[in-house]
Amino acid sequence: MKTYYLDHAATSWPKPPEVMKAMNECMELYAANPGRGAHGMGVKASRVLFETRKVLAKLFHVRNPNDICFALNTTMALNLAIKGFVKEGDHVIATGVEHNSVRRPLEFLKKTKGIAVTYLETDEEGHLDLRQVEKAFTSKTRLFVCSHSSNLLGSILPVGEIGALCRARGVKFLVDAAQSAGILPVDVEAMGIDMLAFPGHKGLLGPLGTGGLYIHPELELVPLLHGGTGSQSEAVDQPDVRPDRYESGTQNAVGLAGLKEGVSLILKEGVESIHRREWELTQEMMEGLAGVPGVRCLGPAKGADKTGIVSFVMEGADPSEVAFILDQSFQIAVRAGFHCTPLAHQSAGTAETGAVRASVGYYTTREEVQHLIEAVKQIGGHYAK
Amino acid sequence: MKTYYLDHAATSWPKPPEVMKAMNECMELYAANPGRGAHGMGVKASRVLFETRKVLAKLFHVRNPNDICFALNTTMALNLAIKGFVKEGDHVIATGVEHNSVRRPLEFLKKTKGIAVTYLETDEEGHLDLRQVEKAFTSKTRLFVCSHSSNLLGSILPVGEIGALCRARGVKFLVDAAQSAGILPVDVEAMGIDMLAFPGHKGLLGPLGTGGLYIHPELELVPLLHGGTGSQSEAVDQPDVRPDRYESGTQNAVGLAGLKEGVSLILKEGVESIHRREWELTQEMMEGLAGVPGVRCLGPAKGADKTGIVSFVMEGADPSEVAFILDQSFQIAVRAGFHCTPLAHQSAGTAETGAVRASVGYYTTREEVQHLIEAVKQIGGHYAK
Repeated sequence: MKTYYLDHAATSWPKPPEVMKAMNECMELYAANPGRGAHGMGVKASRVLFETRKVLAKLFHVRNPNDICFALNTTMALNLAIKGFVKEGDHVIATGVEHNSVRRPLEFLKKTKGIAVTYLETDEEGHLDLRQVEKAFTSKTRLFVCSHSSNLLGSILPVGEIGALCRARGVKFLVDAAQSAGILPVDVEAMGIDMLAFPGHKGLLGPLGTGGLYIHPELELVPLLHGGTGSQSEAVDQPDVRPDRYESGTQNAVGLAGLKEGVSLILKEGVESIHRREWELTQEMMEGLAGVPGVRCLGPAKGADKTGIVSFVMEGADPSEVAFILDQSFQIAVRAGFHCTPLAHQSAGTAETGAVRASVGYYTTREEVQHLIEAVKQIGGHYAK
Repeated sequence: MKTYYLDHAATSWPKPPEVMKAMNECMELYAANPGRGAHGMGVKASRVLFETRKVLAKLFHVRNPNDICFALNTTMALNLAIKGFVKEGDHVIATGVEHNSVRRPLEFLKKTKGIAVTYLETDEEGHLDLRQVEKAFTSKTRLFVCSHSSNLLGSILPVGEIGALCRARGVKFLVDAAQSAGILPVDVEAMGIDMLAFPGHKGLLGPLGTGGLYIHPELELVPLLHGGTGSQSEAVDQPDVRPDRYESGTQNAVGLAGLKEGVSLILKEGVESIHRREWELTQEMMEGLAGVPGVRCLGPAKGADKTGIVSFVMEGADPSEVAFILDQSFQIAVRAGFHCTPLAHQSAGTAETGAVRASVGYYTTREEVQHLIEAVKQIGGHYAK
């Protein structure tokens, strides 16, 4: 039975055939431990990991591929960035649309290291006022953390402008690209980004279990993991050389071989073209849903720039129930609830109820979008009775 | 061209066809974000993760599968265990055969939290004297970390006995099962193990990028990762419920679907039977290598119980060179160097040179073992000239 998959903000699906082919090839032919054996298979595995770094570096405009370190997921990358950089007494600025993968590490450091955190509230649509950003810096501010796009509202945050403000003040800038890697153009140089956390399995079309962190070459972090790196075994300290310093233990070579193909596909088509296509589908979805009585779409108004996320609420209906009916009666996969981003719900006025989130991706078709609209119309008619 | 793969201590290869089939099925049919979407695909992904926990629980004699938390690799599991448990001023006991994934976190905590660490030296074969163990406890000892089997010497450490000593003193016991999970019987109850870190991609026959940590139900750790768990989104603190508390961010569902099949295979055959088979191959390998003039095998003497690791040095030959020739001229994959375990090399008297490590696994054949012996003979003949 066909699934109408509209949950790309959680993970993209299906994956390109090239990704699966590369994973199978790796499993069958060279799934050795990269960087550990000097034999042909281990060397091949290491080389593929470097090639994955290379395409990622190209996509994000990173000069040295070894400044990209792999991680299990974006959360792990954000934990490395935040816990590895923030020191006792620091002041950190973040926004009101941050995911719990940013908020919870910061709240943990508030308790354990006595840091101070300012969360900049966004407007109802998830937009940030740059004048408010400017006012938030203090003499103790050392880090600014900003989601590139809200995982609830789809709003795009002005990372280039914030990057410039940070750079002028010597404040380091960490961007959470969970909803933008492979979806919006990212240029770490031009945007003044010092650290970029990204998932491999969302917009980059790679498999679950992949992701990473770009770290500016002059920035040194306390590693999140200490352990074996296959290099400088005799030293009791973590080696300084990148990426080894931040990549202890065996890497997910199979997944990363797949990720390489996903990123290559993105590079071939170009992020701008992908964004345009997804934006048009998103507009169509918003227009259709807005036409259903009792439905309110969250986030930027129609016509504004945003990523492919359309969260909505339906008068008198529990979002979880709507998602359940969409799944059971219409084979539509969406996500309901709080999406790990409680502050964004406060801005959107949905802190009590949560919302239904539909999200488009690389392979989404107009047919899928229209099927969702039709289904929501039917459900709306049912609740209106 | 056939590869004679004898690097199972780094990662097992090839993987069972069932593992690859399960991964492909997951990629094709239900690679959604487990625990995030309420739709059919997400539910299926969550269920498979739970089934993976269930077979692991059965293998390790863990009562509640939710006491097993997944990680990128053993190193991540060990970092969670060590950094999440050890407090300022603690005394920790570890052994001289620990991997850098234990030693480096401990050395890091020595510097940052002022903890004290005692490394118990093993004898040349990698065996630990229990009388020495007993003497190492102090009033400040809170944790004992022990590798179940040395990744250099193949020696098996008396974890059951150490577990009993720890339990009698209220000291928590962490076992590194990197070289024993799926290879030697592990019973966390009977052995008094409070935390067990294990790889998914070695003896358990799963893919790279999988592993985990068993945590005793009464033990609470500081999470290594703080972030979104798909549960209790509105709370600023990490939830208490397991496994969510220790599994922030998107899990490697594809890899874990594969791991389930690997573990199921192990359960079907039984660890004892696998160990017996590998032990016989190991004995044959040791006997053959010992017959080559100038070759010295490290670790337990022939006839003693050990895992499938045979490290050796060859008079007058650089181990890296030997490994290179084995790869280039004989298509044999082994590993040369220090294997991230400098203290074990000190015990074995190979701290200056390192060693060549050949290791057998689930699919190793007598033909592969004989091919290695023949190759080493030829190389030995070359060096003797």
